[in-house]
Amino acid sequence: MSDAYTAIRVARHDLERFMDEALARRGADAASREAVIRALVTASRWGTDSHGLRLLPHYLEALAGGRINPSPAPAFTRRLPATGHLDADHAIGHLAGYTAMAHAVEMARDVGMGAVAVANSSHYGAAGCYALAAAEQGMLGLTVSNSDPFVLLHQSEGAFHGTNPIAFAAPVAGGQPYVFDMATSSIPWNRVQQYAAIGRQLPDQVAATAAGEVTRTPQEVSALLPLGGSEFGFKGAALGGFAEILSSTLSGMLHGFRLLPMAGDDMATPRGVSHFFLAINPAGFVDAEQFQQRLGAYLADLRAQPAVAGAEVLAPGDREWRCMAERDAEGIPLDRANRDTYASLAEQLDISPLTAL
Amino acid sequence: MSDAYTAIRVARHDLERFMDEALARRGADAASREAVIRALVTASRWGTDSHGLRLLPHYLEALAGGRINPSPAPAFTRRLPATGHLDADHAIGHLAGYTAMAHAVEMARDVGMGAVAVANSSHYGAAGCYALAAAEQGMLGLTVSNSDPFVLLHQSEGAFHGTNPIAFAAPVAGGQPYVFDMATSSIPWNRVQQYAAIGRQLPDQVAATAAGEVTRTPQEVSALLPLGGSEFGFKGAALGGFAEILSSTLSGMLHGFRLLPMAGDDMATPRGVSHFFLAINPAGFVDAEQFQQRLGAYLADLRAQPAVAGAEVLAPGDREWRCMAERDAEGIPLDRANRDTYASLAEQLDISPLTAL
Repeated sequence: MSDAYTAIRVARHDLERFMDEALARRGADAASREAVIRALVTASRWGTDSHGLRLLPHYLEALAGGRINPSPAPAFTRRLPATGHLDADHAIGHLAGYTAMAHAVEMARDVGMGAVAVANSSHYGAAGCYALAAAEQGMLGLTVSNSDPFVLLHQSEGAFHGTNPIAFAAPVAGGQPYVFDMATSSIPWNRVQQYAAIGRQLPDQVAATAAGEVTRTPQEVSALLPLGGSEFGFKGAALGGFAEILSSTLSGMLHGFRLLPMAGDDMATPRGVSHFFLAINPAGFVDAEQFQQRLGAYLADLRAQPAVAGAEVLAPGDREWRCMAERDAEGIPLDRANRDTYASLAEQLDISPLTAL
Repeated sequence: MSDAYTAIRVARHDLERFMDEALARRGADAASREAVIRALVTASRWGTDSHGLRLLPHYLEALAGGRINPSPAPAFTRRLPATGHLDADHAIGHLAGYTAMAHAVEMARDVGMGAVAVANSSHYGAAGCYALAAAEQGMLGLTVSNSDPFVLLHQSEGAFHGTNPIAFAAPVAGGQPYVFDMATSSIPWNRVQQYAAIGRQLPDQVAATAAGEVTRTPQEVSALLPLGGSEFGFKGAALGGFAEILSSTLSGMLHGFRLLPMAGDDMATPRGVSHFFLAINPAGFVDAEQFQQRLGAYLADLRAQPAVAGAEVLAPGDREWRCMAERDAEGIPLDRANRDTYASLAEQLDISPLTAL
């Protein structure tokens, strides 16, 4: 597939090779490299381009600056049979995420559920990756994270919550997992920048000026509205708070409003991002067969719903799994900006460039 | 306080006395009566009038018809240390809810978390009541429920999910719990009926015609849009699915699309509503003091945010606790419709009427 967006396509394994070499140049240890690659390549294969290969340069910079610890020693404490705390030692968030969810899954296998609050982490990319990791082990998975402030409270003038994602996944017998990953704002912050760059108006009820007034003009935007907009944003703000409390309060860390900005100039000071991971063992509630039978019946009814003209009714994840199949067959696309960035990374780090398919 | 809405105000204990007698006339056993009263009166004191005293006549009818079992024998099975299944024996949903959350709290005290999936239940009123029950025991509480279909999927033509609520609460040292209770649609179904009755247009992006087209005219409404409206409703639909999967799939029950309607004529057939309850013990993650210190700092920052002109920034629950204080002091209001309904219930069931304050 060729389109206006795509400058080149690359093979998954070539992209993984490139990321591995680039991360190694910045001192990231094997466990960190493996986790970053797993998460970024999953996001890129899913079509979640905002959280895929685009982020590699950012992580390389944070590793080089010392904000992220390239060879951390995360310390897990199982405080009770179903719960624990992971001090991530300022690891890259993907390593913290996969490590924490693995502990949660282990506890869920043992006692029916497991949850881990993670302290001293950093940006963990696409939350859906960790929910997926639970589903791949036969568990329901939930994860939330805090992040630095971009989103208004309901009727506040300034940003308070981050776009604090909620991701959830469920294992589906004979198919790909059910999975969603949603920011608790309507749009991500980088969409404001994209729309500004191409001179496009934003949708209504997604962003506001510094006075807290709704605007559709990207250049006027000071913060995002929570999901639900100016009238029902108390719901999106509550969901943002749900993510915040589970992440920062349960891990004993600062809430998002007090975090250093991800995009800030200070690449030396660890940010102390926090996350929360929950794994639920279906067999703790009903027999595994009954669970799958009910889930299958639900998804069959859902996908059979008639759509409005020109649309299609999908279950969460359907679009992403379809994109993954296409990109596994045709290659992972890079737009012009990413193509150029990866080319200069290759030069700068002295590694073989990506091969365009 | 007197306003256009309020016909009379009554004392909390008089309302509880009335409900107890009315429920007893319909054969409800002591445990069922206690649970219904606790939930309905909490909702009315909070100002959640859609789920408060207004619903008593409905439950009386369902008890009289046999749809709800007036003297159920709920059966709890703790399948794993942190998880269990409650067959509610077609109990009134409030009894199922408080029973299940009590089991979840007990497991959370023991192993750090507890969750219960509930089968064969019925409408449980305001979800926030059960999240609160966990917070009153020092736990974080989460509950979700399925319900009969009123809400579109993203881009579907017909309703599929119920308004499937998500409620969450956290204990706050020295204050009332943090608590939210949100439908995964923007508005509840009964708002469409209210607005039709008073000839008012609905907000934009909350409801649709039978063809799935957004409308603001209550008389044209066939279904509600999920939270996020026509553009971002995939998020609200995902949250509705989250509630559905935890409730019906984990309990082994039918999903909401297959349920008999709550407002249907058949008052004899049990509906088989399902719910999910989760209790999280903060001490399973960090020391209790640290948890409270972090939560307090978060809430202080949140409440200190400047508001847009004419508004106030509140934490979830602040408005409800304020309303409760006012109603505890001044009485619980009944509008004219409820005043008349309660007067005729008194006659019909031969019990002393409510006393207007």
